Amino acid sequence: MSRLAIGLDFGTESARAVLVRVADGGVAATSTYPYPHGVIDRVLPGTGQRLPPDWALQHPGDWLEGLATLLRTMAAAAGDEIIAVGVDFTSCTVLPAAADGTPLCLIPEFAAEPHAWPKLWKHHAAQPYADLINAAGGDFLRFYGGLTSSEWSWAKAWQVAEEAPEVARAAARWIEAGDWVVWQLCGVEARSACQAGYKAHWQKDTGYPPASFWASLHPLLPAFLDKLGPPPQPVAAPAGGLTPTWAQRTGLRPGTPVAVAVIDAHAAVPALGIADPGRLVVIMGTSACHLLVDPTRRAVRGISGVVEDGILPGLCGYEAGQASVGDIFQWFVRAAVPARYADGAGGEAAIYRALEAEAARLGPGEAGLLALDWWNGCRTPLVDADLSGLIVGLTVTTEPHEIYRALLEAAAYGTRRVIETFEAGGVPVREVHACGGLAERNPLLLQLAADVLDREVAVAALPHASAVGAAIYAAAAAGPARGGYASMIEAVQRMGGHERTRYRPRPEAVRTYDSLYGDYLALSRYFGEGGSDVMARLRRLRAAAG
Amino acid sequence: MSRLAIGLDFGTESARAVLVRVADGGVAATSTYPYPHGVIDRVLPGTGQRLPPDWALQHPGDWLEGLATLLRTMAAAAGDEIIAVGVDFTSCTVLPAAADGTPLCLIPEFAAEPHAWPKLWKHHAAQPYADLINAAGGDFLRFYGGLTSSEWSWAKAWQVAEEAPEVARAAARWIEAGDWVVWQLCGVEARSACQAGYKAHWQKDTGYPPASFWASLHPLLPAFLDKLGPPPQPVAAPAGGLTPTWAQRTGLRPGTPVAVAVIDAHAAVPALGIADPGRLVVIMGTSACHLLVDPTRRAVRGISGVVEDGILPGLCGYEAGQASVGDIFQWFVRAAVPARYADGAGGEAAIYRALEAEAARLGPGEAGLLALDWWNGCRTPLVDADLSGLIVGLTVTTEPHEIYRALLEAAAYGTRRVIETFEAGGVPVREVHACGGLAERNPLLLQLAADVLDREVAVAALPHASAVGAAIYAAAAAGPARGGYASMIEAVQRMGGHERTRYRPRPEAVRTYDSLYGDYLALSRYFGEGGSDVMARLRRLRAAAG
Repeated sequence: MSRLAIGLDFGTESARAVLVRVADGGVAATSTYPYPHGVIDRVLPGTGQRLPPDWALQHPGDWLEGLATLLRTMAAAAGDEIIAVGVDFTSCTVLPAAADGTPLCLIPEFAAEPHAWPKLWKHHAAQPYADLINAAGGDFLRFYGGLTSSEWSWAKAWQVAEEAPEVARAAARWIEAGDWVVWQLCGVEARSACQAGYKAHWQKDTGYPPASFWASLHPLLPAFLDKLGPPPQPVAAPAGGLTPTWAQRTGLRPGTPVAVAVIDAHAAVPALGIADPGRLVVIMGTSACHLLVDPTRRAVRGISGVVEDGILPGLCGYEAGQASVGDIFQWFVRAAVPARYADGAGGEAAIYRALEAEAARLGPGEAGLLALDWWNGCRTPLVDADLSGLIVGLTVTTEPHEIYRALLEAAAYGTRRVIETFEAGGVPVREVHACGGLAERNPLLLQLAADVLDREVAVAALPHASAVGAAIYAAAAAGPARGGYASMIEAVQRMGGHERTRYRPRPEAVRTYDSLYGDYLALSRYFGEGGSDVMARLRRLRAAAG
Repeated sequence: MSRLAIGLDFGTESARAVLVRVADGGVAATSTYPYPHGVIDRVLPGTGQRLPPDWALQHPGDWLEGLATLLRTMAAAAGDEIIAVGVDFTSCTVLPAAADGTPLCLIPEFAAEPHAWPKLWKHHAAQPYADLINAAGGDFLRFYGGLTSSEWSWAKAWQVAEEAPEVARAAARWIEAGDWVVWQLCGVEARSACQAGYKAHWQKDTGYPPASFWASLHPLLPAFLDKLGPPPQPVAAPAGGLTPTWAQRTGLRPGTPVAVAVIDAHAAVPALGIADPGRLVVIMGTSACHLLVDPTRRAVRGISGVVEDGILPGLCGYEAGQASVGDIFQWFVRAAVPARYADGAGGEAAIYRALEAEAARLGPGEAGLLALDWWNGCRTPLVDADLSGLIVGLTVTTEPHEIYRALLEAAAYGTRRVIETFEAGGVPVREVHACGGLAERNPLLLQLAADVLDREVAVAALPHASAVGAAIYAAAAAGPARGGYASMIEAVQRMGGHERTRYRPRPEAVRTYDSLYGDYLALSRYFGEGGSDVMARLRRLRAAAG
């Protein structure tokens, strides 16, 4: 009898389950469940109440319904062969709940209160609170590149405390959606070091930032330390076993081990077969996330965070990011490519193909353009959302495919800068692995990255990488006695994907791009590090006028 | 009997004649003659010989045929009422000729030699020679913003001397096409202070740069001083009377006064009714030319030139320029505006209309963008063809009409910088007048210019302004005894167009644009004045790869 693990991946618009063979990581089945309510960013369900700008909520009923549907589907496919369940979730997607885990928004008296609803990761309305936390400072921030984010747990908590104190008071729990799903499945509230570490500033040695700090900011904030529940556990730890209720509801065996939750991006690392230091994973999509493990925890300026047990147990997991990559290309194709590129039937895909074919024929520097890839601000290393995109070198003969090439090159410069930030901070990067939709779709981008980095870039075509990773954590959590593995390293080595398409640097291009990267750095310093604050002022003018 | 003057305007693709009433400047008739050979930039006529890159020639046969055709048409329309003929021409469009004026290219032994043909103003292949003249320096350059141009007479002469010495030796004359046309008409070689001053570095007090200077550069160059013919005469001076041959060929009276030639752009000044200091004329087209008269000659860094008698007799005419204005907008519409703006039937005009309507609804700064208008390099004040265009402030929500607005604003910033250059050099600017196709077509550009300049901008809708100006010079050249005017001032006051559409600065916009102009200046200094040479290096990379 073959052994299988379920990986559950809760994304922004839908949830997905994969059934993964424990022996070799092969995917036996997949299923997707689109959330009926999607992203709630305009009107609160059942009330007609309009939400303010920058809000983004989700419906916990969608998660529960998805959970039941997906697990039933998997159980029907594999019956008794399923040995464990793992969960990854977007993060920080966080909700207030009662002591028994009931989401406040599902309790009638709170249903019409927007702050009682789960705040999705991309809820950005807590920015003023993030700004206040950053202004207050705090030693804990040194492991987060110096800054908290409006997307993270404490900024969102403070927004609730300030704008809906009755919700803050009524919430016995303030919990990541991933942890909440695990709690539903096994009846045990098990917090994940991954979510707690990257999003709520928890560190293994010092815990959360202290009550005294939060008390200095808002009287209701210290109590959130209690609402964060029991001490977080390392990823790949077993949270508990499936409850009889959920076993009956789904057809899985009661007691089936459930692993503690992980953040969706971070689950891609084991899926790529990576369990050791120095091997950077770049997940390329609309933005890019850079993940890496190392035995040592270092305070590196400009990264997103470093958390022990956050990606692999026993190691420090590092995260950095580029705030925009694929969305720059998408902006360009939608907003700035002329009619003749659209050949009618092909739509955007055809435009991308045409641009890529023409851009690939250009030599390094031939476009005569240089761009700063800050269309959404700069995450690593400047952590500055007020920065913006720049193109220099435009002439009356500049053509669209030349601009497109410059945008691809800028994305590669941004990746080089992330790697140099890690290395300057004492965190070695030996290999570069890429995955994600953009990495699979855009070979020119990968070739240019190899040229700009002067390193081989190994691309893993691994659909549903996060879900597969969740299944690997589950197999490790199950342990050998229940048909899983004795360690996460063993699980990764057996179940992780190791096939790669390899892009190798071209020496001639490396020389030119090394020089152009020098220009990228110089412009980056001028516009991002004190030379000119024009980008911030342009953003303010735009916001004031809008 | 009404008196009429003919203005002949020789442009890049065609020649035009207008018949202008001497009494009030009203246009009685117009006619156009497209050059059969157009711009010769690929293959030499009659030989199949391919021309190198950056070459641009014209066929003197086209000019002669156009001259005869247009004058016949005017004579047929007005008979004996025509009192004078004026000529304006693109410049520096220059040719080698025999002692009797025969263009060398029309002499069979030279017909296959490209250097025997007239070099059109936009022949750019003499750049290396312009660079060498600039490297050599010379006090005469201080009245030309410090630099000569590859488009001008001496760089082109040197190219002939170096690359076709037999042409240089055989050419008894090196003559501007405008002067050459006047020579044909009246049999008298009369050089114009306008062309000689702006394009061959002639100054009324010191003449041309001395033989010793040219001898230090190339042994054949000093002889060009002789080839430049008799001393230049002020604009509006009579060159001579129409020869019997041309009278017979056209139907005009023999002896009809012909004025000395002027440069086409400069002829727009009298056409706008301007004959006194401090009233800047901005001619807006693909590029912009800024013309102004003042009693005093000053060496102003970064302008194109200052020439006594060059625009109006007895005054010093100043010229400055923006290397690209309309061609940036055209580039944008062609290369960077997505399909949805083209509504099918309307073509480019419809795209412009749609962009303008949307851009006009934005407030100052609302686009959140800032551009440097250097798509073709910067003429005034930096005189640097290696500079290039820049856009900063781009985000994933930036829309095409926002970029278009930023490009219009950048053109206005560039105009403000030209005005500040004049004023910093001690040349007062009291009023701003605009004309040209772009000024007539693009009211939003004019409104933004008024806002950015914090000055009223008065737009003259004067089709064929240069040709009308040529007719005004002719009426002054004729003098009162022959039915013209006693002075150029009187001719301008009576015949110049004084109607204006006035754009007035909006106080709220003025404040914002004053601040944004500060940013434009800061970026201009960083990229154009020593902060970063990235633009030049990008140009070199592009040229090397191309």
